[in-house]
Amino acid sequence: MKRADYPEEIRRLISELKRLPGIGPRSAERMALHLLREQAAPALAEALSAASGVTFCPVCGFFQSAGLACALCGDDRRDARLLCVVEQPHDVLAIERTGAFNGRYHVLGGKLSPLDNVHPEDLRIDSLLQRASTGQLTEVILAIGSDLEGEATAHYLSGLLARPGLGVSRLAQGLPAGNALEHIDELTLQRALSGRKPL
Amino acid sequence: MKRADYPEEIRRLISELKRLPGIGPRSAERMALHLLREQAAPALAEALSAASGVTFCPVCGFFQSAGLACALCGDDRRDARLLCVVEQPHDVLAIERTGAFNGRYHVLGGKLSPLDNVHPEDLRIDSLLQRASTGQLTEVILAIGSDLEGEATAHYLSGLLARPGLGVSRLAQGLPAGNALEHIDELTLQRALSGRKPL
Repeated sequence: MKRADYPEEIRRLISELKRLPGIGPRSAERMALHLLREQAAPALAEALSAASGVTFCPVCGFFQSAGLACALCGDDRRDARLLCVVEQPHDVLAIERTGAFNGRYHVLGGKLSPLDNVHPEDLRIDSLLQRASTGQLTEVILAIGSDLEGEATAHYLSGLLARPGLGVSRLAQGLPAGNALEHIDELTLQRALSGRKPL
Repeated sequence: MKRADYPEEIRRLISELKRLPGIGPRSAERMALHLLREQAAPALAEALSAASGVTFCPVCGFFQSAGLACALCGDDRRDARLLCVVEQPHDVLAIERTGAFNGRYHVLGGKLSPLDNVHPEDLRIDSLLQRASTGQLTEVILAIGSDLEGEATAHYLSGLLARPGLGVSRLAQGLPAGNALEHIDELTLQRALSGRKPL
């Protein structure tokens, strides 16, 4: 005898939820049943449809509400001389949450990674060089991850950006806040040492 | 200066995702960005809309595709003399996956729990008694959880169902499969002892 299963609609919902990052078959099933029990499926469906209308700002590459100007590029109180280059849109939020930067942003859309087939032409590098060529910028901060690909990308960009009057900087590397030395890996400690600052 | 945030549509999607069981703010944000990056939001929205059309079979209480007969009640190869009573629709799947039962089902929709304001009239008890009164049944298996409320619900139901010719049984309680005795709690061990079987 064929064993009973959920109706096709529920199985499809479970399989869509299973594609979310970090969600296994059990979690997906629990979520689907929760959504049906709480009758929350229509609200989530509507939120998804609305969010699909979000596009990317052609200048900075951050998210942009459909039909609205970019909240970052359109904000005149931001210092147009400082440009912070990040890999992904959510990195913009991470920098914003620090409250320590009030310039403009440029989202690359990734980092160079020949092994994963990500080459310079796959990133928003042309538009970065164009923004840097206007003469308005005094500093470009490369806020890119400190892994191997991040290092390579930063190096590559600093070569392209080099010109008199334009400073190119990277985020400092060293101890993360609130960590004892015994929990720090070797490479981090090595970089913290070589980047030491006089008190 | 106001810190930049995601567009309103993305914030709304994140807050909807945050309401899913086991999903915190970080996971919800990661999911939302994943859905947008992979352009998977429309597919999930559609799956949700389709799943909202799923109803419950008025007889057994399991899920039923919109416009289709119940896959369980409509299956004539299932033994109509055996009725398995479970708390929730997903418990039907758990029993089905064992492959050890080929009768019919009845979903209660919960268990008695006066503290959570769940009383007999909140459960599908009337329709259970009606199904039991047709004389077709020979056994009702109460496949209800072994916690306090489950015990109380099983007791309550067995009193209502009692009549000559109708067996009422509960799931066995004892050691879970593949467990060493040292990992078993006291109450489970006590029940395993009192329910011991001759070899």
